[in-house]
This record gives sequence, structure tokens and C-alpha cells, in this order.
Amino acid sequence: MPELNSAPALPVVYRCSIGPAWVDFNGHLRDGYYMVLFSSAVDALMDLAGLDEAGRKATGHSWFTLEAHINYLHEVKQGAAVEVRLQMLGLDAKRLHVALSLHPAGGTQVLALTEQMLLNVDMAGPRATAFAPQVAAYLQPLAAQHALLPRPAQVGRVMALPQPK
Amino acid sequence: MPELNSAPALPVVYRCSIGPAWVDFNGHLRDGYYMVLFSSAVDALMDLAGLDEAGRKATGHSWFTLEAHINYLHEVKQGAAVEVRLQMLGLDAKRLHVALSLHPAGGTQVLALTEQMLLNVDMAGPRATAFAPQVAAYLQPLAAQHALLPRPAQVGRVMALPQPK
Repeated sequence: MPELNSAPALPVVYRCSIGPAWVDFNGHLRDGYYMVLFSSAVDALMDLAGLDEAGRKATGHSWFTLEAHINYLHEVKQGAAVEVRLQMLGLDAKRLHVALSLHPAGGTQVLALTEQMLLNVDMAGPRATAFAPQVAAYLQPLAAQHALLPRPAQVGRVMALPQPK
Repeated sequence: MPELNSAPALPVVYRCSIGPAWVDFNGHLRDGYYMVLFSSAVDALMDLAGLDEAGRKATGHSWFTLEAHINYLHEVKQGAAVEVRLQMLGLDAKRLHVALSLHPAGGTQVLALTEQMLLNVDMAGPRATAFAPQVAAYLQPLAAQHALLPRPAQVGRVMALPQPK
């Protein structure tokens, strides 16, 4: 499958190394922990968008994950240094549709790809609400820029057993 | 959305409580840890199918997750007792397509639903290989029985921003 989302234009939003608590008896990252890693990448994106702890306090907003899809493409070993790149797939007044790809640090190989739908929430409700102006001002140019890029091949996939030949 | 997968016929494959390491600053289960929980449910299903530690040693087989989709439907609090039910969606010689639903222990509310594609792997390769006969003998009647049930509404969903009205 072509690794379309390895274009250098995509910003790295998160870097980490695979710790011993996240691997199985073979020393490989367990499936569930890919999503824990991507969750930290979304936290990092919130920080970049101005929703760090101070921003969350000032606005009363946070992001909820509504839905996610993940394709596991390669094993990742304990100790590996990895990075997550962001491609915005869509944006409206209160929702953000993103693709996050996992790569070896500084590399282009796609180890896993997740597609996620995130919702901006006023925690006082909690209820869905429009992004704060300064958050929208960060996200909108990124979404406009990324709309010009090809989408990763995995986006929009529906799982099914291969049909018998 | 109708909670179709709360039919009592679906077997509970895993039970646990939400520990403090899995929650955010609001005391709610973090998005990534739903998938860690479902990963343990798949381990429990492997045990039921005869691929516990002894079975994995005897056959040399294990299961890899190829792909997963998750819908987050309700918040889950620290300390909550929960259970995971299984609905088989498909089965071929070496692949297993499942829906796993998260519920309050003994309850019917669907807190989250994941759809996953699992592959049987001979770890000596590692290479994809047919299920061992005793594993297939466990999975096949379950798949035949579950094929008669309605599928959860979330199965096969493609994520997209709502279209403007």
C-alpha cells in the first residue's frame, strides 16, 4: 500500500520512545498502546492549538474523541524512538477530523495510521461548542493547507474479510 | 442510536474495573485505554479459544490485530466495573472479524463499541497461517450462531464531518 502520508510537509506533533510497560512478551508495542500513544499526540496538538492546561482553564474547553480507526502496519520494538505526524482531514465550527501517522523518529516509514474525529466540548456542560477564536485561528490555516495534500490510503476504510477468489 | 448489540445472547468474554492509571484528570477512562481494555478482552477470547499460554506454546500461533475501529459512546468513571461482550462478524481460515462492546457489569448500556480484524500468525515466521483445528472448532459454531444476529449499528461506519444543512 503506498505510504502517502509520509510527505515531508506534515508537521510532527509528538515524539516519544516505547517504554517497557507498553510491550508484550515479544518486546513489541501492544495494539492498545498505539492508541494511548496517539492520545498523547492529540494532547500535544491541543497544546499547539492553545488548549494547554492554561488554555483549557481560560476557555473551559477540551476535546473529546468521538470515533477512531487504526491500521497496524508494522511492529514497533521496545526502546524505539518514534514520532507522530498530523494531517488535518476536515474542520468545522466544533469538530476536527485528523489523520495521525506513526513513524520511526526522523523516518518516513508508516508504522501505523489512525483517523480520528474530535469534538470541542465546553466542560461546564459538558456540551459541544464552537472552538475558541484563537484555537480556530490555529486550526483553520492548517486545515486549508492540508486539504491540498493526498489523503492516506487507509482513510475511510471499511473492514471486511477478503472475498474468496 | 439503537443499542443493537446488547442482546443477551452475546457472551461476556472479559470483566474488569477501571483503575486509576487509566483515567484523566476528570476521573474518566482516557480514549486510548478503552483500546487497552479491549486488547485484554481479545487476550481473554484467545484463552477461551484454546490459545492461552500453553496453547500458544503447543501451536506456535498467536493473533495479530490488523485494524480496528472504535466508537466512544459514554464516559466511564474510575472504579467502574465493566464487562466486554463478543459478537463474531466473520471468520475465514486465518482471519477473525469481531465486534466487542463495553458495558457496565451486568448491564445492557453500550459504553463503547470496537470492530476489529484479527489475523492468526505462526510466530515461527512470523507468517499468516490457518487456525489450528481445535481453535477453528471453537470459533466456527460461535460465528455461525452470531451470523443470525443483527449487527451493531456502528459496524462499517466511515467517519466524516456532518454535512452542513
